[in-house]
Amino acid sequence: MRIAELSQRSGTSIATIKYYLREGLLPAGMATSRNQAEYSEAHRHRLRLIRALIDVGGLSVAAARNVLTAVDAPDLPTHFLLGAAHGSLVRPRRRDTEDESWRAARDEVVALVQRRGWYVDIDCPDVFHAADAVAAFRTLGQDDMLEAMETYADAAELVAAREVDAVIARRERARMVEGVVTATILGEAILNAFRRMAQQDASARRLVDPEDLRSTYAAEHG
Amino acid sequence: MRIAELSQRSGTSIATIKYYLREGLLPAGMATSRNQAEYSEAHRHRLRLIRALIDVGGLSVAAARNVLTAVDAPDLPTHFLLGAAHGSLVRPRRRDTEDESWRAARDEVVALVQRRGWYVDIDCPDVFHAADAVAAFRTLGQDDMLEAMETYADAAELVAAREVDAVIARRERARMVEGVVTATILGEAILNAFRRMAQQDASARRLVDPEDLRSTYAAEHG
Repeated sequence: MRIAELSQRSGTSIATIKYYLREGLLPAGMATSRNQAEYSEAHRHRLRLIRALIDVGGLSVAAARNVLTAVDAPDLPTHFLLGAAHGSLVRPRRRDTEDESWRAARDEVVALVQRRGWYVDIDCPDVFHAADAVAAFRTLGQDDMLEAMETYADAAELVAAREVDAVIARRERARMVEGVVTATILGEAILNAFRRMAQQDASARRLVDPEDLRSTYAAEHG
Repeated sequence: MRIAELSQRSGTSIATIKYYLREGLLPAGMATSRNQAEYSEAHRHRLRLIRALIDVGGLSVAAARNVLTAVDAPDLPTHFLLGAAHGSLVRPRRRDTEDESWRAARDEVVALVQRRGWYVDIDCPDVFHAADAVAAFRTLGQDDMLEAMETYADAAELVAAREVDAVIARRERARMVEGVVTATILGEAILNAFRRMAQQDASARRLVDPEDLRSTYAAEHG
């Protein structure tokens, strides 16, 4: 197909496609004349992956290029390919890693990882992010809220197993990477929204008189 | 205590305390002379709540004032007080609610709410946020990833029950509101970080040779 058709079928403007070609994210089409090239289904799929990385994952062009290089490296074991895609989705954050209360929080998170037997890199950004939040809870004197820590870990295992199974079921490497991006970013959005709804529900069930529940929420359960 | 001591004990600058006094977030102290006032433990607690709302929850001064008004309204049932605090933590987002694929996604979320029997307002922002993500999954042709929807809901129920129990156990209204803010914001950060770690773990267990698992993650499980 010509670039115009590739644009139309992928919903990506010609200018953007040309930009990805220049930046080396999208391989060149097969030249059919001095000014024209022919693009294949492979181009359309690659374009979809690029857009998942950049539009959904929020990756920079350079970060997207790194992930695409990993997708194309036949010797890279799949676990590390998925790890590369996953790791690229983390935004770095500044923190004082020498701060004593932060270090205590980090040790707490590492202890949980070891207790659970999770195979994760204890120096990964996710451990640091969890430590940030644990340190904030403690600084605010909200230690009782941390009693939910193990429940957070239970819930995390529950969803992660399901998501990773869905990603692996795709078999094809590029499609698996797309799955990592969408599951990580959009899955997080769904989980967070559902959690807030479930909080409303749990509050209503515990604090609203059962007689009043039906009338208050008549519209929802009409 | 004098304002200087209130500042020191709360870790809030005098300028910030004066700002909260001017904005009516913090009630005036008891005047002891023309230029001095005496502050109580109640002031220190209120200050802590204000900082939870503004620093952790990211609320504007106006939004924090609304929540504080709800805290002080003796006739407002606790469920609705917590709902006011909870609802204030949502950032509004622009979306095209007339878009057909968005509406289909929203119907899907509402159907899930009804299937689960969740007592939530189906016009609340959380339903809209979930619909945004579901619509994005579908637009990207990642429908298979939505098979995890019920698992997200299961995990959401699991953590929400635990969190709401911890909040209600506090009994005192202001402390409960603080708990809603920290559990909602910081709890979300912990859950999301744990989920990403659990994804790494699930991927390692499924894709890395068991013989290699120990050596690859030796540092973590030393």
